[in-house]
Amino acid sequence: MGAPEIHILSAGSALPGPAVDNAALARRFRMDSLWEQWVDTFIGTRSRHLAVDLDSGEIGASLADLGEAAARTALTRSGLRAADVDVIVMATATPDSLMPATVNVIADRLGVDQVPSYQLQSGCSGAVQALDLACQILRAGRHRTALVLGGDVIARFYDLDVDLRSVPPSELVNFVLFGDGAGAAVLSADPGPGSVTVRSVLTRLVGLGRAPGATLEWFGPAGHGASRAQERPAATEDYKAIERLVPAMSLEVLHELLDELEWKGDDVDYLLPPQLSGRMTALIGQRLGVGSSQVSCVDETGNVGNGVVFFQLERMLARISPGERAVVVSIESSKWIKAGLALEAT
Amino acid sequence: MGAPEIHILSAGSALPGPAVDNAALARRFRMDSLWEQWVDTFIGTRSRHLAVDLDSGEIGASLADLGEAAARTALTRSGLRAADVDVIVMATATPDSLMPATVNVIADRLGVDQVPSYQLQSGCSGAVQALDLACQILRAGRHRTALVLGGDVIARFYDLDVDLRSVPPSELVNFVLFGDGAGAAVLSADPGPGSVTVRSVLTRLVGLGRAPGATLEWFGPAGHGASRAQERPAATEDYKAIERLVPAMSLEVLHELLDELEWKGDDVDYLLPPQLSGRMTALIGQRLGVGSSQVSCVDETGNVGNGVVFFQLERMLARISPGERAVVVSIESSKWIKAGLALEAT
Repeated sequence: MGAPEIHILSAGSALPGPAVDNAALARRFRMDSLWEQWVDTFIGTRSRHLAVDLDSGEIGASLADLGEAAARTALTRSGLRAADVDVIVMATATPDSLMPATVNVIADRLGVDQVPSYQLQSGCSGAVQALDLACQILRAGRHRTALVLGGDVIARFYDLDVDLRSVPPSELVNFVLFGDGAGAAVLSADPGPGSVTVRSVLTRLVGLGRAPGATLEWFGPAGHGASRAQERPAATEDYKAIERLVPAMSLEVLHELLDELEWKGDDVDYLLPPQLSGRMTALIGQRLGVGSSQVSCVDETGNVGNGVVFFQLERMLARISPGERAVVVSIESSKWIKAGLALEAT
Repeated sequence: MGAPEIHILSAGSALPGPAVDNAALARRFRMDSLWEQWVDTFIGTRSRHLAVDLDSGEIGASLADLGEAAARTALTRSGLRAADVDVIVMATATPDSLMPATVNVIADRLGVDQVPSYQLQSGCSGAVQALDLACQILRAGRHRTALVLGGDVIARFYDLDVDLRSVPPSELVNFVLFGDGAGAAVLSADPGPGSVTVRSVLTRLVGLGRAPGATLEWFGPAGHGASRAQERPAATEDYKAIERLVPAMSLEVLHELLDELEWKGDDVDYLLPPQLSGRMTALIGQRLGVGSSQVSCVDETGNVGNGVVFFQLERMLARISPGERAVVVSIESSKWIKAGLALEAT
């Protein structure tokens, strides 16, 4: 008997607060309607949800809050209970704490216990890395049901006192590009109603000699001697590198998955492309040129980091029919990781 | 053909700067000789290495620096080259950045590329979690050689301006208990000279309803509106809970591994116990009562977090003979994870 095939039974997602559209951002940061139009047109992200209240500065949701909510939705849709989960994997760039890992806080709240738990520190493609690990663990045969989560809360980087007119473009995009949110999926060695089978997973570091396209720093407690010594910019984006490299890498991921499975472009019914910004995602989708349906959410949610793929899976699972195929493409620009999934409804 | 057995070929470690003994700490923080004796006797940790210079506050080594050095040592000892590594896994509580993951920075420096890479956010037992994942990935058969790393640099939490006399005991221990360092191991589906075979791996969350025994927070950039809102203590240790729970959990891990393999206590030649403090480690070692050799380094290195198990493996691999057996026990107190390894030299 070979290794079992792994199935995605369900997905769920959670967003904090109300949608914050570009007009609301413009009002809050006293930008004019030209700026608002610039975001609409050149970023193409219409709204996002934020864990921080733009008026009070209060943080309304933690990653554990969002992950817990997404996991409850995914579990309910899978027809399984917390007690059925025998391994839990999470991916995030922005854990609530360094210790304990947020995955373990969520497990406690859900009542998941006595199981292996793993939390990946990762950029956007962490969702695929986490799904990859869950598949490998389930294939090894000792576990049957995995709860996989991903998400990010960037509230600690949201500077409410900033004058956006004085912010360089490389930092300005951070205020409009990202959103907070978390997603989850239930994976099983047994298929379920409406499940999709994981035909292939790809995740591969391709960072050799390449400068990071995105960086995000954390800091020690304010005023500590040893933290003062290393003030680096909190967040950077090399948007030129991202615009140049991500479309080409996306195409490579797509073709590698298709070649491995001997699928043709026409065989792909659903394409779940990288979710950088509304505009970039549309461009990449066009360039990949497969999938009669392209499943995106970035124009509404912003780039929800390690949550992205779960938001896309949730939308796709609601629509996919037996025999249809889907390809997920995810590129991590922080140190350049190519990642993807090939899925088939059975 | 079943899944291949996995072998640990080699281990390496790296420490920053010179050893900082308790007398040096006492001098730096203007504590008296009574305090120094208290640390010697009740903590039992004689020295540690710090990535921060106690006089200048300058940070002399990053986690990437230490991880790279440890990995080079482990690779050299394994007889393999960076090009042979086809998967890389790292565990840490204190990554250099949130993005990129430190594992990918280290991979780049070593020349490891075009491979899956994973970084776990974890407390002390992260080393076992990372070794566990590497074993599962190698057993799946698509990869042959894994480089596994673990380590921590707590320099950003080291407050050089603190008056230790005013610090509550729960925080005071943080100044004497921990050290900076990183370790690495090379795992392979093929045995090598002096390698040990992984007979069993255990890692299991047992946090249900238990408050964290240790917490470590990260902060956003100073002065940001959304970061001001959530000032929590940077680091806490519930030493009473740790002293009560870790010895019992260690015993459970030992017996679960022995039972699974049908080994008796007398079959264990080397015990690699949890490395909390020199004193606690000695107590736990006595309580476990197996292993004619107990392999510890905590009295010299301090608790090097996710590096601990690699430092122990390095010492054990230098001594173990064919037919001898070893058990590693690791307990993560942040949200309570039981972890362990059973190894056999073949």
